[in-house]
Amino acid sequence: MKNTATRYTGNKTFDVIDAASPSPGKGEVRIKVAYCGVCGTDVHIFHGMMDQRVSMPLTIGHEMSGVVDAVGPEVDGFKVGEKVVVRPLDDRGAKPSDKGFNHVAAALKFIGIDSPGAMQQYWNVPAFTLHKLPADTDMQLAALVEPLAVACHDVRLSGIKPGEYAVVLGGGPIGMLVAMRAKHAGAKVLISETNATRCQLAKELGFEVVNPINEDLVDYVSKATDGGLADVVFEVAGVQPTIDVMTEVAGIRGRIVLVAIHGQPRPVNLFKFFWKELQLIGARVYEPEDYDDAIQLVADKSLPLNALITSVAPLTSIQSVFEQIDQNPDGMKVLLDCQA
Amino acid sequence: MKNTATRYTGNKTFDVIDAASPSPGKGEVRIKVAYCGVCGTDVHIFHGMMDQRVSMPLTIGHEMSGVVDAVGPEVDGFKVGEKVVVRPLDDRGAKPSDKGFNHVAAALKFIGIDSPGAMQQYWNVPAFTLHKLPADTDMQLAALVEPLAVACHDVRLSGIKPGEYAVVLGGGPIGMLVAMRAKHAGAKVLISETNATRCQLAKELGFEVVNPINEDLVDYVSKATDGGLADVVFEVAGVQPTIDVMTEVAGIRGRIVLVAIHGQPRPVNLFKFFWKELQLIGARVYEPEDYDDAIQLVADKSLPLNALITSVAPLTSIQSVFEQIDQNPDGMKVLLDCQA
Ligand SMILES: NC(=O)c1ccc[n+]([C@@H]2O[C@H](COP(=O)([O-])OP(=O)(O)OC[C@H]3O[C@@H](n4cnc5c(N)ncnc54)[C@H](O)[C@@H]3O)[C@@H](O)[C@H]2O)c1
Ligand SMILES: NC(=O)c1ccc[n+]([C@@H]2O[C@H](COP(=O)([O-])OP(=O)(O)OC[C@H]3O[C@@H](n4cnc5c(N)ncnc54)[C@H](O)[C@@H]3O)[C@@H](O)[C@H]2O)c1
Ligand SMILES: [Zn+2]
Ligand SMILES: [Zn+2]
Repeated sequence: MKNTATRYTGNKTFDVIDAASPSPGKGEVRIKVAYCGVCGTDVHIFHGMMDQRVSMPLTIGHEMSGVVDAVGPEVDGFKVGEKVVVRPLDDRGAKPSDKGFNHVAAALKFIGIDSPGAMQQYWNVPAFTLHKLPADTDMQLAALVEPLAVACHDVRLSGIKPGEYAVVLGGGPIGMLVAMRAKHAGAKVLISETNATRCQLAKELGFEVVNPINEDLVDYVSKATDGGLADVVFEVAGVQPTIDVMTEVAGIRGRIVLVAIHGQPRPVNLFKFFWKELQLIGARVYEPEDYDDAIQLVADKSLPLNALITSVAPLTSIQSVFEQIDQNPDGMKVLLDCQA
Repeated sequence: MKNTATRYTGNKTFDVIDAASPSPGKGEVRIKVAYCGVCGTDVHIFHGMMDQRVSMPLTIGHEMSGVVDAVGPEVDGFKVGEKVVVRPLDDRGAKPSDKGFNHVAAALKFIGIDSPGAMQQYWNVPAFTLHKLPADTDMQLAALVEPLAVACHDVRLSGIKPGEYAVVLGGGPIGMLVAMRAKHAGAKVLISETNATRCQLAKELGFEVVNPINEDLVDYVSKATDGGLADVVFEVAGVQPTIDVMTEVAGIRGRIVLVAIHGQPRPVNLFKFFWKELQLIGARVYEPEDYDDAIQLVADKSLPLNALITSVAPLTSIQSVFEQIDQNPDGMKVLLDCQA
């Protein structure tokens, strides 16, 4: 069976090949991929930043939607034609020392980084990674389930309550999804973002927005909350200035959810953690219930997710898609159309 | 009425005076102080580190036990002769923006730092600061209620459960009390401490002890927990090496309670917070229930608190007491006997 597949081959290059698509093995399902979004991590891989981890050539991609195309031996509960998404966590190496938090197990393998991903026509995955979608789900929006599940996880771990005031530091794709999910939970949400185009989008989506280049964020939040400051802060930018401001903009007993990945130790104002009894909550990927939550939100059309899809391009144009993403810091989510 | 009082007068000096002891005002109670412990903060004051905050001359001290000596107008529920301790938090300036966490209210005044304290014979305090002690309470041990309440607060905020593995970084008076309270809650407790004499004391108290100068703490804990590492870490040392090790020694979803005061921003490994979904929980002083908990533990003689009392000295020897504390990093808690 012909399978148009893309592969990262190193040196900022993808190739497009006619790969074989073997039948699904024991415990596996073959997916006919519909759409696959490009994640910041995929762009990191393109830049060669993860060449030590990625075994080239590798088909990458993990933000996908698709349809069951074939069911392998010893798989129960899936039928050809069903719409699905993949939760790309291979936690088969989990141990008791992971304490049941298998989504962050020490030996976790991320499918699409540590093993082949979704940027191809046909994709074999372990059946345990699948979540079913309702039959009428929009397949472009379903490709946002994975990043939306990140946001659902972050908001869930924050313990946010209706009426609480949340500040989202960084209005990239993940920050916007966090903001949408927090607003859906009944929070008042402000997005702080330095990119003017992204600020504009956030405003169009109905959020309060501060560009900290032009305005003092802490002053703004203090006024908006009668001095109470933020109940919850989401750090989704990954830079020193947001680490500096997170301890200022959080009020007494504020919860700061750390979503962004910081590649180096950062000076943190620990005195403020003591003084205001702040909490810092590290958050990584998602647990199964976060996928269920994200799927429900997509199915219900509860969130203005469509506004985050900047463009949709054919799978075979992958090389130019990644090159264009590099030149457009304003863009949000680009989807590859993987259907023949 | 004669009142032998001590006062910090600046320049590493205390004086001892015969002060007047006015009758307790409206809402106040006069305490005849029994014992008053010397806190690290008192030593900071002695060193002149808090001269900007402290209005000299000032009677300091907040770790006390005493007896009701007189009851002012409009005070209900207290009788002369009752044993009490003071929770030295004046939260009368609390506002809605403090969200009900009045023990860390922005306008909180700490009695004994921001207003006169217990290192005197007679002390007038607002009645709302008092907690009663059972009649047979040992008054020396009762002087440890205040620092023990700190430990009760820290352990409560950690959410520790029986059987969990806790690492206490720093075996000073607060670290030892945290270790005792955590052990009483059913946790397995290891103390990491660099001072050999304090290590010895911790061992005598029945704790597992590592001196990180001689042994690799993370290796040790990893072996003791089959790779699971610590469920809870208490940072009670206040130095960069413990900030560096806290993110290493905590296992997946580990909770790190930040008790120590860090006067400057510290490089923190935020990647580990993301990767292991760690939590950092800032903890400051105590809430009323922590005082109740500490009083119960003192009354029940549940903890080997006596081992922490290094010496007891007359109030009038305050100057030499502070000078000796400076020369003895091994000592734990020194009590001033404030009884005539
Ligand atoms: N925890 C997880 O499992 C998980 C999952 C996905 C992504 N991430 C991380 O989340 C972060 C965000 O992902 P993304 O795809 O949205 O990235 P992104 O780079 O598109 O978004 C970051 C945004 O922060 C903005 N920003 C930069 N400096 C700022 C400042 N001082 N104040 C306010 N905003 C500022 C940027 O303009 C950008 O829009 C990244 O660090 C990513 O690695 C974590
Ligand atoms: N959160 C609060 O409300 C509160 C209340 C009281 C005290 N504190 C703070 O708690 C901290 C501890 O108070 P304390 O009175 O016990 O102080 P302390 O100075 O007596 O104890 C600190 C201990 O840490 C040890 N230490 C230093 N470096 C170490 C290392 N690398 N590894 C392990 N141990 C190391 C020291 O030898 C010392 O025994 C201080 O920072 C104090 O300001 C906080
Ligand atoms: Zn991703
Ligand atoms: Zn103290």
